[in-house]
Amino acid sequence: MSESLLQRRARLLGPNMPTFYADPVHIVRGQGVWLWDAEGRKYLDCYNNVPHVGHCHPKVVEAICAQAGVLNTHTRYLHEGIVDYADRLVGKFSGELETVIMVCTGSEANDIALRMGQAVTGKTGVIATDNTYHGNTTAVSQLSSKKPPIGGYAPNVRRVPSPDSVRPLGGSMEGQAEVFAGHVARAIDELEEAGIGFASLILCPFFANEGFPDLPHGFLDPTVEVVRRAGGVIIADEVQPGFGRTGSHWWGHERIGLAPDVVTLGKPMGNGHPVAAVVAKPEVTAAFREAFGYFNTFGGNPVSCAAAMAVLDVLEEEELVANAEEVGAYALGRMREIHHPMIADVRGAGLFLGMEFAGEGLEPAPEFTAQVVEAMKARGILLNRLGRHYNCLKIRPPMPFSRENADQMADTLAEVLDGMPA
Amino acid sequence: MSESLLQRRARLLGPNMPTFYADPVHIVRGQGVWLWDAEGRKYLDCYNNVPHVGHCHPKVVEAICAQAGVLNTHTRYLHEGIVDYADRLVGKFSGELETVIMVCTGSEANDIALRMGQAVTGKTGVIATDNTYHGNTTAVSQLSSKKPPIGGYAPNVRRVPSPDSVRPLGGSMEGQAEVFAGHVARAIDELEEAGIGFASLILCPFFANEGFPDLPHGFLDPTVEVVRRAGGVIIADEVQPGFGRTGSHWWGHERIGLAPDVVTLGKPMGNGHPVAAVVAKPEVTAAFREAFGYFNTFGGNPVSCAAAMAVLDVLEEEELVANAEEVGAYALGRMREIHHPMIADVRGAGLFLGMEFAGEGLEPAPEFTAQVVEAMKARGILLNRLGRHYNCLKIRPPMPFSRENADQMADTLAEVLDGMPA
Repeated sequence: MSESLLQRRARLLGPNMPTFYADPVHIVRGQGVWLWDAEGRKYLDCYNNVPHVGHCHPKVVEAICAQAGVLNTHTRYLHEGIVDYADRLVGKFSGELETVIMVCTGSEANDIALRMGQAVTGKTGVIATDNTYHGNTTAVSQLSSKKPPIGGYAPNVRRVPSPDSVRPLGGSMEGQAEVFAGHVARAIDELEEAGIGFASLILCPFFANEGFPDLPHGFLDPTVEVVRRAGGVIIADEVQPGFGRTGSHWWGHERIGLAPDVVTLGKPMGNGHPVAAVVAKPEVTAAFREAFGYFNTFGGNPVSCAAAMAVLDVLEEEELVANAEEVGAYALGRMREIHHPMIADVRGAGLFLGMEFAGEGLEPAPEFTAQVVEAMKARGILLNRLGRHYNCLKIRPPMPFSRENADQMADTLAEVLDGMPA
Repeated sequence: MSESLLQRRARLLGPNMPTFYADPVHIVRGQGVWLWDAEGRKYLDCYNNVPHVGHCHPKVVEAICAQAGVLNTHTRYLHEGIVDYADRLVGKFSGELETVIMVCTGSEANDIALRMGQAVTGKTGVIATDNTYHGNTTAVSQLSSKKPPIGGYAPNVRRVPSPDSVRPLGGSMEGQAEVFAGHVARAIDELEEAGIGFASLILCPFFANEGFPDLPHGFLDPTVEVVRRAGGVIIADEVQPGFGRTGSHWWGHERIGLAPDVVTLGKPMGNGHPVAAVVAKPEVTAAFREAFGYFNTFGGNPVSCAAAMAVLDVLEEEELVANAEEVGAYALGRMREIHHPMIADVRGAGLFLGMEFAGEGLEPAPEFTAQVVEAMKARGILLNRLGRHYNCLKIRPPMPFSRENADQMADTLAEVLDGMPA
């Protein structure tokens, strides 16, 4: 059954369509933190951040159904849905992040954010970190260094080395903030010297894809100073750390102490419904709309807004941000009790946790990490790996993850590592 | 109430957020071809193609609710939903259009299509028509000539004049196909001479935004010959004419007799649920996936596929494509019975109809057209205008539009025009 499904999938969706795991799972049902495959096997979901408040949360499903049966049009007609949601959303931000553009995907949000930088500065240069991913549009995918695009890398993109917990920039954790700011300053100079000019710095304030290094509050202060001096726009991509994922704060930029001009939101926003947004300072939104005009047919439709609103309701009613902090700290503690010579680091915040594996001389161990991922799956735990070297476990479950779930994950991880040679 | 909503909207969503009509309507409910505003006023929807099978069609709502309650994940796990839908969808195409990439918006689909052209040819030059709109990403919005982007127009985009019913290219309807092909040939030469090289031609095969000129089957044959000779990829943007809109055919490219390499789908696909797709020849999809890699978090999720599948079900069960042909022809006949000195042309296909207004010497009459749009709205009929000069009514209702609906629209239009000076 699954084999034939794989074959049909390859025929109809084309080759190189990514799947997880050596033998991909065929998931048919989800509820809360649980997933079931076609054979009825139950998995603890320690990976998916899109079903933020839990797979198929009844309140979100109900909100989608109710609105889908009443009206689903676009924003060229007036509707309370988008205005009420925007009002509620900006209430979650401090600073002047007071306007919202609603779209369908985080990629669309980041595509807009880059143009906001252009509209404000009149320049096109972008600085991003060197192991990042901000989405899949033509413009946004050029921020990633993974594959050279046809026609070559865009001349307006400069990449800077991202900070690291295990191998800090400049060799010491203490000096890392200044070293990072120095890389940004040099990239700005290069863009200006090339006649392109510097428009914006875009980063995930949790540096999620880079392996979410442990960084102190204020880490980005020297970088902000450099960017402000150059008149650039700061874009915080909150697609991963946003909506309380890190437990201590609603947004990753608050956690690290960054005050961005633009924030982009995506994956968890509608619990799986395709909805995303750009939250920005009013003058930034105004500059963008003036310079580019913009209309998104599905963006901010009443159903998408109902789904997104229900997610905020559930986050508050079930106190899931506090849960992320409490259960995340508990899970981290449990993970730190595990001992294995290949463990180079255990870190994370809230319900975004990782365990980094390395051999002698801190040599990254991506193969070992892949084996752990497969062994966990074989024991009914879904997680994955990430980081510059793909040697860090990515543990990022739905937010209603409990202590009991954390115990199951940590116990299984201990068991798996116990059976693995150093 | 509505005034305060408008003010909140401007404050929260920013300035220049487009609305329809001098006094925007505040729509709160939809069913079939009907919309209701906050004061309980009922409107006949003659504009919206997104609610393709009718606003809030119960079968589509039911499909969304059912799947949203069971599972909504991504395509890195196996799921029948996307494979079954892709299978059903490619069955609607002839030629070798046998593979599908699912995304969330028509903009995302066109953004991929352009990169498919790059992947196949190794070049980046794109040719589009000069009054077109293919979406809102950075790359795709550069196809539009409406606003020069910051940093200037992209050097890899060339625009050719689009065909016209009232003011044909080259002065005669007979020679228009060759003249259009000649423009394309010159644009190809320019791209090659500039060292950019020609990758793809993208067009709406119905030339919807250009005012959907009446063009004969085979109109694009000379253009296709030119593109094929240069080794280019042909992209048909079916976001507007697709899914049977034009009545006689499922796809606009079939109607005009074009065999594209890539087809993009959007707005009507999920009846308002954010789902879109690229359908392409297997070798084109393979080249794209090989050159760029691609993953779309929400694209092809089980709920989106359920919504899209239900749309196909309803189209077939209610024979809505045949309905579009029959009612569209009837409506066109009724519109042709209307006489007014400003009417320059009445045209369309299926349920995509227009009436073009011009003064002496075929001088386009955008203001007159705008007054007609407002007067129709005042009488409970929602439609709009389009075309190079915004002097053509855009009548594009949900597909269950009936003869009775057509009569109401045509009677009201006659009444409105009767009251307007020449």
